[in-house]
Amino acid sequence: MDNIIPQTILYIIIILLYAKVLGELAERIGQPPVLGELIAGVILGSSVLGWIKPNDALLVFAELGVILLLFEIGLESDIKEFLSVGPSALLVAIIGVVLPFAFGYLVSYYVFHLANTVSIFVGATLTATSVGITARTLTDLGRLKAPEAKIILGAAVVDDVIGLIILAVVTGLVTHGSVSALDVAKTSILAIAFLVGAIVIGLIITPHILQFVKTLRTRGILTISAILFCLILAYIAHKLHLATIVGAFAAGLVLARTDDTAHIQDRVKPIADIFVPIFFVMLGTSVNLSLFNPFNPEMHSVIYLMLTLSAIAVLMKIFSGFGVLKKGVNKLVVGVGMIPRGEVGLIFASIGLARNIINPGEYASIVAIVVITTFITPPLLKFVLRKFNTPDDSLSYE
Amino acid sequence: MDNIIPQTILYIIIILLYAKVLGELAERIGQPPVLGELIAGVILGSSVLGWIKPNDALLVFAELGVILLLFEIGLESDIKEFLSVGPSALLVAIIGVVLPFAFGYLVSYYVFHLANTVSIFVGATLTATSVGITARTLTDLGRLKAPEAKIILGAAVVDDVIGLIILAVVTGLVTHGSVSALDVAKTSILAIAFLVGAIVIGLIITPHILQFVKTLRTRGILTISAILFCLILAYIAHKLHLATIVGAFAAGLVLARTDDTAHIQDRVKPIADIFVPIFFVMLGTSVNLSLFNPFNPEMHSVIYLMLTLSAIAVLMKIFSGFGVLKKGVNKLVVGVGMIPRGEVGLIFASIGLARNIINPGEYASIVAIVVITTFITPPLLKFVLRKFNTPDDSLSYE
Repeated sequence: MDNIIPQTILYIIIILLYAKVLGELAERIGQPPVLGELIAGVILGSSVLGWIKPNDALLVFAELGVILLLFEIGLESDIKEFLSVGPSALLVAIIGVVLPFAFGYLVSYYVFHLANTVSIFVGATLTATSVGITARTLTDLGRLKAPEAKIILGAAVVDDVIGLIILAVVTGLVTHGSVSALDVAKTSILAIAFLVGAIVIGLIITPHILQFVKTLRTRGILTISAILFCLILAYIAHKLHLATIVGAFAAGLVLARTDDTAHIQDRVKPIADIFVPIFFVMLGTSVNLSLFNPFNPEMHSVIYLMLTLSAIAVLMKIFSGFGVLKKGVNKLVVGVGMIPRGEVGLIFASIGLARNIINPGEYASIVAIVVITTFITPPLLKFVLRKFNTPDDSLSYE
Repeated sequence: MDNIIPQTILYIIIILLYAKVLGELAERIGQPPVLGELIAGVILGSSVLGWIKPNDALLVFAELGVILLLFEIGLESDIKEFLSVGPSALLVAIIGVVLPFAFGYLVSYYVFHLANTVSIFVGATLTATSVGITARTLTDLGRLKAPEAKIILGAAVVDDVIGLIILAVVTGLVTHGSVSALDVAKTSILAIAFLVGAIVIGLIITPHILQFVKTLRTRGILTISAILFCLILAYIAHKLHLATIVGAFAAGLVLARTDDTAHIQDRVKPIADIFVPIFFVMLGTSVNLSLFNPFNPEMHSVIYLMLTLSAIAVLMKIFSGFGVLKKGVNKLVVGVGMIPRGEVGLIFASIGLARNIINPGEYASIVAIVVITTFITPPLLKFVLRKFNTPDDSLSYE
């Protein structure tokens, strides 16, 4: 047996053990379990114990974790409710892109005197919304059916499409000094066509596919078909430069409208139970605590830039909540739900670093912003949700 | 996103699609689905399409597949029934080791005039039993509760311990010219102590652990605890040089005696549905069809050796069925169930090749024996089981 196999099995044991122990502790002190899983990751990562060294297999497991999470959330969702909050989601997404970009650019350029291209890039990295953390926190708290959750999820999907366009424009501008409008239009149209097409065509053909699948005799065929549908849409989304989770979410939405939704949910749950914590623990392991060391003078300028940009990142997304048009919806909850930057911000930052658009100090600041926005969201969301009373859905506990 | 992640997602999509299509076809022509999955692997592997190139993530998935398969089978099993067939299983295992070793050695040495050390090594590689194929075939056919299944599973566990001892003795003999009796005794005693200890201690403490687990509040905690228990025993087994699946099987046996068995089975099933086919498809991808090309004159001596040794490998394991002491048990079914060599034979062969004990031609012959014994078992087992009438357990279909 190759060494990688027992090594990865040991990693999975450690990750699941720590995830569950710290998740339970978080729960006991009134916090969402996902916060415990993130902290488990920090403890196991290179900053503290150094027990987990990410390998290919763990990275694939983590990605499948977030894919299954959004698939599950799609399965729990009603597409009609999304359409009803459509205008709100669109406005929240647009405000949540424009404000962080404008303020991020202005502060970088006029206050920190960064170069013009660097300032554009920093502004762009602040626009992304990574919905994994919020979706999981809402699940932990049993609020997935609330209208706020629909608006956040809808806005996050829109945000991913806008983010794709921004990335194309900004990297074009910064590397070639110009942008091909045709390329940008092509990428955006493909992405939108995929989303609309996957859902419309999916709704038409899945009942027929499921009927056929049920005539098959091999064990677990319905579960495997559902997972396959999810993975295929996730893969196509990736090929169109969207996030895989957008495809997985669309797959969930489509299958939520079939007769077999309850059966599929029931079978996907245990699979997600294994994979999802691996994603959040791995996210935690990527945190480099030395970025936050105030006793290292070299870090002072980084810390200063980081704190200012983090404040912009958080406040401007909270303001995006004012884009909510629907009555009776808590705008603060929506705004807070839009805070996390997650892996989308990291992808921006790593492209900037690879192309020498930003320097390692600026890169470190962006990574720190992602970490800060990721860690404050679960407790903050729990806090602003306090005024609501009863959890309203079934995903939260077994 | 790293390239390995979307690449592996695409591989998983292709593997599951082909596994299910060919599994279904196998089923329709009256063969166990596992045969279809193996053939899917051959088609996808380098011999035919070359679409799947094994990477670390896929290897980990495959290993988790066979671990979950044996865990599931353990969960379906009653430990008391194993004890009742204990003497039969022991005798079947011993005959199934002695006969292939003796005939493999004698034929290699006297008929093919191989060197003495090579002949010893070839004999040793013929002794292993790899229970994955048989266990899966019995599951496919719904015969897991039959006494024949218990004897095969029990004999396979005993065989793994004997195989461990043989491997230590043979590699010691061949590389140092001598064996440390103390080392061999230590390895064997540790392995046996682990098996007995895991089951006895497991039976005593798991009810208390489960009671504690049920006071926890995080989602899916019972499922994750069960999987963790399985992975931990699998990992310890590996550390003691046993197969991981022996630990997983022991974990299943222990949890089969608790109040939550039905619940755990229900949750493990969908997880196994995803992982198990990956194991069998990956096993298929490792087949190199060029070994079987009769038009290549260079291959003639290899094919000759291979066919003779395969005949010995198959016949001597069939004879092991005569070790059955219990009445009313079909000895032929037990013997056929012991045929597959699977990955255990491959481990032997790769150690021999790495230490220059055997040459590439001899290595190729051994690999071919593994392939032949693996592929003939599902249809052969189906054939000899014909005289029985009704499937008797629930794992087979959804």
